[in-house]
Amino acid sequence: MAKLIVKKFGGTSVADVVRIEAVADNVEAEIKRGNKVTVVLSAMGKSTDELIQLAKSINPEPDLREYDALVSTGEQISVALLAMALLKRGIKGKSYTAYQLGIRTNASHARARILEVEVSKITSELNAGIVPVITGFQGMNDQGDITTLGRGGSDTTGVALAVALKADECQIYTDVDGVFTTDPRVYEKARLLKNVSFEEMLELSSSGAKVLQLRAVEYASKYSLPLRVLSSFNNGEGTLVQEEKNIMERPVVSGISSIDTEAKLTIRGVPDLPGIAAKILSPISDAEIEVDVIVQNISAENNTDFTFTVDINDAKQAQEILTETSKSLGGGSVEVDEDIAKISVVGRGMRAHAGVASKMFQALALNEINILMITTSEIKISVVIKKSEMARAVKSLHDTFDLDKELDT
Amino acid sequence: MAKLIVKKFGGTSVADVVRIEAVADNVEAEIKRGNKVTVVLSAMGKSTDELIQLAKSINPEPDLREYDALVSTGEQISVALLAMALLKRGIKGKSYTAYQLGIRTNASHARARILEVEVSKITSELNAGIVPVITGFQGMNDQGDITTLGRGGSDTTGVALAVALKADECQIYTDVDGVFTTDPRVYEKARLLKNVSFEEMLELSSSGAKVLQLRAVEYASKYSLPLRVLSSFNNGEGTLVQEEKNIMERPVVSGISSIDTEAKLTIRGVPDLPGIAAKILSPISDAEIEVDVIVQNISAENNTDFTFTVDINDAKQAQEILTETSKSLGGGSVEVDEDIAKISVVGRGMRAHAGVASKMFQALALNEINILMITTSEIKISVVIKKSEMARAVKSLHDTFDLDKELDT
Repeated sequence: MAKLIVKKFGGTSVADVVRIEAVADNVEAEIKRGNKVTVVLSAMGKSTDELIQLAKSINPEPDLREYDALVSTGEQISVALLAMALLKRGIKGKSYTAYQLGIRTNASHARARILEVEVSKITSELNAGIVPVITGFQGMNDQGDITTLGRGGSDTTGVALAVALKADECQIYTDVDGVFTTDPRVYEKARLLKNVSFEEMLELSSSGAKVLQLRAVEYASKYSLPLRVLSSFNNGEGTLVQEEKNIMERPVVSGISSIDTEAKLTIRGVPDLPGIAAKILSPISDAEIEVDVIVQNISAENNTDFTFTVDINDAKQAQEILTETSKSLGGGSVEVDEDIAKISVVGRGMRAHAGVASKMFQALALNEINILMITTSEIKISVVIKKSEMARAVKSLHDTFDLDKELDT
Repeated sequence: MAKLIVKKFGGTSVADVVRIEAVADNVEAEIKRGNKVTVVLSAMGKSTDELIQLAKSINPEPDLREYDALVSTGEQISVALLAMALLKRGIKGKSYTAYQLGIRTNASHARARILEVEVSKITSELNAGIVPVITGFQGMNDQGDITTLGRGGSDTTGVALAVALKADECQIYTDVDGVFTTDPRVYEKARLLKNVSFEEMLELSSSGAKVLQLRAVEYASKYSLPLRVLSSFNNGEGTLVQEEKNIMERPVVSGISSIDTEAKLTIRGVPDLPGIAAKILSPISDAEIEVDVIVQNISAENNTDFTFTVDINDAKQAQEILTETSKSLGGGSVEVDEDIAKISVVGRGMRAHAGVASKMFQALALNEINILMITTSEIKISVVIKKSEMARAVKSLHDTFDLDKELDT
């Protein structure tokens, strides 16, 4: 039976006319398989960055309504060009801006969230044999202004459209072959995963595997929409991200993610009272700084040491805020450590298998890697270690859990 | 009293960030004079040409709906950047695409005509102290598709908006100081005209003075909207194009235009019957070739010679069509002459003064310039001559009618 597939292509996949022609070939092949296709595109290559530079040459902090009006032109260019390339192949491609389709977002310029996708127009186009080619990354607010979703927002557009259209699959084309057991640049034995569950993908995304935008995975998960990550440069099945119940094989550990762009902040000797965590973290989040790993330990005399990680670019600001907080709480010194990496072991099989944590800690101990912080979730164990030991940790854990070997299913 | 002024800036006036800042300065000065301002912009410099090249690299004859979606991004970029530059100056600039404002056009892609401009939104913005900055050159059709008006269409957008807003004046900023008595590149004694009537401007535009788009002048004339042509590079009052009754001085001849990009076609010995002109010209206009000067002479034996001019780029196609026509009519040979120029003497004073034509022909005779064709209208006399004699003809006529001297009013 004919499937309805939403295909989203990122900036590198439409970087120039040659790449756009390759995307048109991809769509043509899908049509010849008898399927219906809707396409969502990012802007060509670095064109969004060029528009941002233009804006900043007028004002380093440009008005955000105008910023959105400006950068939204990037996708408008790529969709028109792809529609032309499809029409050249005898395929009825037709470009649409999110504005033309009325993809509604909230009012937050440059970081808007999609509220509603009205698809009756797309559906009637699809029924007429048309391939709608739609601008990703953007929408319109209630005032009729153009909005953008923030970096990576095209993934969210693709997923939101696929959900609204009740598509069979949303394919996210990128410049990598899919989701790997670990970053192939860190360990050459990294293996492409055929399947991964939404929960695993969320844990992998939030701990360093930047193949998919977190918000897009959450959205797909909420509506049980199968997502496929694949390369627009190589052929291959890529990685299917789907509901756990649909995946046959059940490895204990599916992947290991690593990230070395965070910094660790510690505030010592604050009184261990109810609400102390909120008192420490609220000023941080008020400054729109995202906090990742959080660990709290009771120390001597009912005082507590409180440690958390933030993006390394936010470390200085977080330190200043934390120093103020410590003063007002009568706490001790504030320490910052930028020489850290976070390694996460992720696997839906952990639910059924005990002993993953101890196996992980043993492997790290054997390699004389000191653990600075530990945090766990149902299907993930993360440790923070010294940055220089990151690659060694990833390799030893990849070997320990036999991730280079495919499971028999 | 506060005036409402629509300012339209062409591509060279917004070619880069430096020029956009200069436009913002211009708007700021107008606001400080106590006036209200609406701005219409073209795309930056050569950016439209670059987009067209991109389209043609996919298909030399791209789909026109997609062509319009593509090239309309050029103005969207310039309006967002100008709004940013205004906001930096504390002026409440706000960008709008023609699409956002619902500027309705007919369905003809790449050469659409404006049907309706709904200005309630702009009016309420103006009343709130906002400076709307609007994309020229584009609109939307009934299907909700983006359309463009064709080259020079931004002038039309400016005029249509000014008419709909009942503006006091529409200012067309360009890279020349205004309308001259003749092309300054042809004769250095050319003088800037302070005033010119709509009728004169139409005759000048249609015979070589490409300062203003013909359609924009027609539109302004129809609604008696004063148009001012001025430079965005130099200060100056420019040229005011307005209704004849508002202009005090009344020169016999206002200007001399010249054009050397036409070719002359002659079909000999066709039977002189009623409807013969239509039989000859209909196939030409069916091929969307515009005909300029038309002259018909009776020759011997009730046969007629029929001569007309077309753009030099259309000459070859027109010749082929004409050869077919001649065969079917039993006519004679078809001749093409590309070595021609057209000189037009234009002046609203001709209505009251006889003798302009004979003075003109005498001046040309004195300079031994042979006249190949003559055609006249109420306020214009055009002659077709050899191309090599164009500059000499312009200079002698400019001197003959004392155009370098300002009239006492």
